[in-house]
Amino acid sequence: MEFKTTEIKERVLADNNEAAARTRERMRQSGTLLVNLMGSPGAGKTSVLLKLIERLGTQYRIGVMEADVDSDVDARTIAATGTRVIQIHTGGLCHMDADMVSRALASFGVEDLDLIFLENIGNLVCPAEFEIGADVRMMILSVPEGDDKPLKYPLMFSVSDVMLVNKIDTAPIFDFDFDAAVVRARSLNAQIVCVPVSAKSGRGFDEVVQFLRMRLDERRQMHENN
Amino acid sequence: MEFKTTEIKERVLADNNEAAARTRERMRQSGTLLVNLMGSPGAGKTSVLLKLIERLGTQYRIGVMEADVDSDVDARTIAATGTRVIQIHTGGLCHMDADMVSRALASFGVEDLDLIFLENIGNLVCPAEFEIGADVRMMILSVPEGDDKPLKYPLMFSVSDVMLVNKIDTAPIFDFDFDAAVVRARSLNAQIVCVPVSAKSGRGFDEVVQFLRMRLDERRQMHENN
Repeated sequence: MEFKTTEIKERVLADNNEAAARTRERMRQSGTLLVNLMGSPGAGKTSVLLKLIERLGTQYRIGVMEADVDSDVDARTIAATGTRVIQIHTGGLCHMDADMVSRALASFGVEDLDLIFLENIGNLVCPAEFEIGADVRMMILSVPEGDDKPLKYPLMFSVSDVMLVNKIDTAPIFDFDFDAAVVRARSLNAQIVCVPVSAKSGRGFDEVVQFLRMRLDERRQMHENN
Repeated sequence: MEFKTTEIKERVLADNNEAAARTRERMRQSGTLLVNLMGSPGAGKTSVLLKLIERLGTQYRIGVMEADVDSDVDARTIAATGTRVIQIHTGGLCHMDADMVSRALASFGVEDLDLIFLENIGNLVCPAEFEIGADVRMMILSVPEGDDKPLKYPLMFSVSDVMLVNKIDTAPIFDFDFDAAVVRARSLNAQIVCVPVSAKSGRGFDEVVQFLRMRLDERRQMHENN
């Protein structure tokens, strides 16, 4: 038995795309790379961020925007590393939209930063629908969530440039098949870069860091040529 | 640095509460218990459901409403047990609202059922905001998500009657402190029933089954007295 329900939201998304375009332009002008980090609650977004800050923080000027429904747990964790951080409270809302990001960026200041991470709300559904003007959409699928997730939350995998499969050391415990997850993700998005990582041990981060460095260099070069 | 953003949604929620009240009344009249099962992607909602069907299915007439953004993976899993199931596609929407549930129930039929589970969209944020008229709100927190989740997604813990802590056998691997999770959940909701479970091994299900039996008997008695 099947039952469908849909919602007209073209208007909301059109407004959103305009704000996203403004953010994209602002990033280009200041030579800053914006990464939208997404994933389920507990997938390991903050831990991955800490590892990336550790690996990239000496060479690049990094800022972090921490979106949370209500708390500031993650912002405090990031701030403890000495990284500039802004806490964004969505007031119960389940995702960041482009307008919120654009306003937060204005109050954060971007001119003196090379790389900004937005840690989005822990949610595998809504953040995928709202393009915020990021240069890189990086999603985390954690092993305990299961390798079938691309089948169930297809949009997130479709819109992401990178899929980090985190907690990869626990794959045997959860009968997680990395190759099967990749095949499922690629059937939605042939270009998606898939990297097995462990934010605990650091495994896989060479590849993630290399990917980001490449994008950062491109951005810097584009900025210098302007 | 902090930056707040809020959304006026009183109107939407008022409409929603009316529809929820209608569902609650329909359930009472048919002597059926409605359970809203919520949790993050991969927390184990479908596996918990399978265990509950196995334990309660011989004594009670069970129906399952499977809410999914797009797929029908879980509905097929449940249907394989011979349980009556309806697939609800939210068309990208991140939660079920009371009106969708009410319309789905009408097409599903409830009169000949004792117990209906709604498996909500995998999401720890939005489903908590939309009361759908359930008699029991049962949420699953899975161990790999971390014991800090009540701090970060407080509303879900505040509105739930039961918190199942699933994949409890992996607690040592993830340094998960069950007691700490319970203290955090209870600081938001003193009444919340907390049960450590493993949908894989069946651990903890005696207690969950006992809790549901009690609520089912109350509902049946209330129905017979009418």
